[in-house]
Amino acid sequence: MPHLSEISRCGADLIATATLTVETPGEGFVEITREAAAFLDAAGAGEGVLLLYIRHTSASLVIQENADPDVQTDLRTALRVLAPERAGWVHEVEGPDDMPAHIRTMLTGVSIHVPVIRGALAPGTWQGIYVAEHRSRPHRRDVVLQFIGSPRAPS
Amino acid sequence: MPHLSEISRCGADLIATATLTVETPGEGFVEITREAAAFLDAAGAGEGVLLLYIRHTSASLVIQENADPDVQTDLRTALRVLAPERAGWVHEVEGPDDMPAHIRTMLTGVSIHVPVIRGALAPGTWQGIYVAEHRSRPHRRDVVLQFIGSPRAPS
Amino acid sequence: MPHLSEISRCGADLIATATLTVETPGEGFVEITREAAAFLDAAGAGEGVLLLYIRHTSASLVIQENADPDVQTDLRTALRVLAPERAGWVHEVEGPDDMPAHIRTMLTGVSIHVPVIRGALAPGTWQGIYVAEHRSRPHRRDVVLQFIGSPRAPS
Repeated sequence: MPHLSEISRCGADLIATATLTVETPGEGFVEITREAAAFLDAAGAGEGVLLLYIRHTSASLVIQENADPDVQTDLRTALRVLAPERAGWVHEVEGPDDMPAHIRTMLTGVSIHVPVIRGALAPGTWQGIYVAEHRSRPHRRDVVLQFIGSPRAPS
Repeated sequence: MPHLSEISRCGADLIATATLTVETPGEGFVEITREAAAFLDAAGAGEGVLLLYIRHTSASLVIQENADPDVQTDLRTALRVLAPERAGWVHEVEGPDDMPAHIRTMLTGVSIHVPVIRGALAPGTWQGIYVAEHRSRPHRRDVVLQFIGSPRAPS
Repeated sequence: MPHLSEISRCGADLIATATLTVETPGEGFVEITREAAAFLDAAGAGEGVLLLYIRHTSASLVIQENADPDVQTDLRTALRVLAPERAGWVHEVEGPDDMPAHIRTMLTGVSIHVPVIRGALAPGTWQGIYVAEHRSRPHRRDVVLQFIGSPRAPS
């Protein structure tokens, strides 16, 4: 039987919004878990939720394993197989890596959330938050971070 | 180094909810960015977040490029390759386009959010919000729009 | 023309958070719609939104058809084709089913939301909320449930 824990309650008195700008080195994953935690700290976040949104159509947000870097290698391989270059795409004006990047973005998504419990980001033990860059060359990517919840209790 | 902008703060005093009904012409993308902005305006939204949810299992919500229509053509092609018709699916009772539509919906998703900053929807420059219809024939689709944030300051 | 319904308004005075623990029997879908509704009831939820987050990298959250079980069979088949075992993955230390499970999780996602209207979860008629287990063997999975919205009016 599924088991439900005790319920914790608070108000949603605070929405804090900021933009995190991330330089990517080209195709691959850039972890932003630490930056997301720093934002929560600076925002004075108590309990609630962190919303993340990437303002691009050829880079996405992915929550994935943060332990073995081989996982990221295989995730890249999988995305290349699912959305290959030079597969007869009509949209080629921005280069052969552009349309595959749009498809990989569609499949992985641009908006996610992560719970914030007692002032701390609460992903699973093996989860990291990543900007997935799908273009070949380096890009500057904007991620909107928003906390909705209670302000941290004064210590 | 990733860079974090100034943090903007407000309360979450308003949740506004409405349903947007969209007629689709069959397989393809129907943009609803303008309708989402009109909802925020009618709701008196200030700062916060717009949540979108589509109440169907064979149509989804996708944020993608709004500039070159060729991108949508290629996204459709990609989805057809990833989830083809007549691939030996067991579930065939609703027609050959039904099971592929479920798979395409699973891969692209039914719930997304977009930040709302200073009363305006804040997607990236090239991002539009789309209902992705995955069935062959026209359908009527319900999208629940919800704003969570501060009410707009009186002008 | 898209049609927008009347707008319903409330405050976001309540955030309620709990963890639902689900035992999965191995690869496949476990429905948690009833448990999500029970959480909303226990939390005293009025109007707002339910956020769900799964704290794992080899299981995901999927909203899909709850009527014909053949759909789930075909969704599993589709995920197996899109992310097959023994496809030359580098990350093999946790077994042949592990890397495909990571890929299937990336493609389907770990964070979703569902609207809550007048105290009740408001998915579409044919939508159920599922934990999608992507590993072959049974696992215990934690799903963080969070309601943001107004408390239920006293009856």
